[in-house]
Amino acid sequence: MTFFEKLENQVCTKHSYLCVGLDPVWEKIPPHLPRTQEGLLEFLLMIVDKTKAHAAVFKPNFAYFEILGASGMEVLQELIRKITPEIPVIGDAKRGDVGHSSQMYAKAVFETFGCGAVTVTPYQGEDALRPFFDYPERGVFVLCLTSNPGAADFQLPELHLQVAKKVRAWNVTGNAGLVVGATRPENIAAVRKISGQMPFLIPGVGAQGGDLEKTLFAAEDGSKIPYLINASRSILYASSSEDYAQQAGNAAKKLRDQINLCRPNL
Amino acid sequence: MTFFEKLENQVCTKHSYLCVGLDPVWEKIPPHLPRTQEGLLEFLLMIVDKTKAHAAVFKPNFAYFEILGASGMEVLQELIRKITPEIPVIGDAKRGDVGHSSQMYAKAVFETFGCGAVTVTPYQGEDALRPFFDYPERGVFVLCLTSNPGAADFQLPELHLQVAKKVRAWNVTGNAGLVVGATRPENIAAVRKISGQMPFLIPGVGAQGGDLEKTLFAAEDGSKIPYLINASRSILYASSSEDYAQQAGNAAKKLRDQINLCRPNL
Repeated sequence: MTFFEKLENQVCTKHSYLCVGLDPVWEKIPPHLPRTQEGLLEFLLMIVDKTKAHAAVFKPNFAYFEILGASGMEVLQELIRKITPEIPVIGDAKRGDVGHSSQMYAKAVFETFGCGAVTVTPYQGEDALRPFFDYPERGVFVLCLTSNPGAADFQLPELHLQVAKKVRAWNVTGNAGLVVGATRPENIAAVRKISGQMPFLIPGVGAQGGDLEKTLFAAEDGSKIPYLINASRSILYASSSEDYAQQAGNAAKKLRDQINLCRPNL
Repeated sequence: MTFFEKLENQVCTKHSYLCVGLDPVWEKIPPHLPRTQEGLLEFLLMIVDKTKAHAAVFKPNFAYFEILGASGMEVLQELIRKITPEIPVIGDAKRGDVGHSSQMYAKAVFETFGCGAVTVTPYQGEDALRPFFDYPERGVFVLCLTSNPGAADFQLPELHLQVAKKVRAWNVTGNAGLVVGATRPENIAAVRKISGQMPFLIPGVGAQGGDLEKTLFAAEDGSKIPYLINASRSILYASSSEDYAQQAGNAAKKLRDQINLCRPNL
């Protein structure tokens, strides 16, 4: 089964467009957990276990594991291995390089780490993205319009639209998606116009203050997976008490329901 | 001592503008070496040992270690630890993310992996790069014009010039450089015009066929470190016999001398 088929199953079964980002930092992890590889893995697996009824997909961000060096990467590999195979995993790696190096990154994320999908950066053009697209059963979310202030430096006003247009043209294997931040709903609408039915991975609704209702309206395309709404911190750190995982589950359920309430009636 | 001070020492002492890229792949590593973490580390340390008289800097590419998972990252950490502290190391990681994630990547590359400098991707703008610039003693090489065909997709004709201009403006800590590929010398000249005296990290002269003489002429700025010329495969795999390291050393010396011969007389 491909990443997007698996994802569609999850979306339909759980009525959920929620992506739970797994971005662990020691300072915010409940104090009763040991600051060890085991403690970190336990924290993440408990979060996964208590949120998986409401999450369509999980998205570990490589940065938060890389900072711990080889031992962090070991936790990441183990985490992905232990997430039940029905639930797809997006490796939020923002990778991108040229030629042979790009092939190495694609193989690393998809084969070594076993991610079902990945986030990649478009700056280096088609041949830098092609090795990722060449895994037709995996998903490839290309950065298009990010949720940070710096999106205004290069992406706006034109570049993000060029990216959307080219990625659509390059998407011959049908496994591409776009990353568009919830902080600029008016731009999302413009991206949707030229991107056709490509799934959007949408960060920025929680701590970054994006408007959920406007975002969903702008991103809708009538397909089964028009978008995935990502939340990380608001779920992961819903509580620092011993019931942190249960509270994370509650936060995930609440956001899933809120997304469904805000979805436009088509 | 900062990365660029250390680098200047190396450039002056060795009369070398050569950067040796460390991009190991099993298929090309001499067959007599064991396919283990130890074998990989031995290969790389032997290469470093026999080329260091001619190389100003080493540049391991993270992709080639990540593909081996946690154990590859362990080799990378160990490799960087074992390169003598006088010789600076550029972590060729092409990282970039927003907000807190970008801080994590900066900390990972500079502190966890101990690199003196890093390559980063500019797509997400200033606040994605700032956490890297905020290590004033480290170097930050921002992708500007890459050496691959895909550079034509977004970077040309304008974007790479905008990147050069903005990075120059953001470079208040004086630790920025640009990555410009040797495959388009005419564009390098245009980048040099607007970038001031920022060191260029230049890939693409070896296997990718860039013109060394034209490239050096276009990239020159009269400073002590106008550029670093990177070569990976042509040095690493100069031979697959037992004398591979010695042959790598010869190839490094040859390229260093060739660069010096081609340098314009200012």
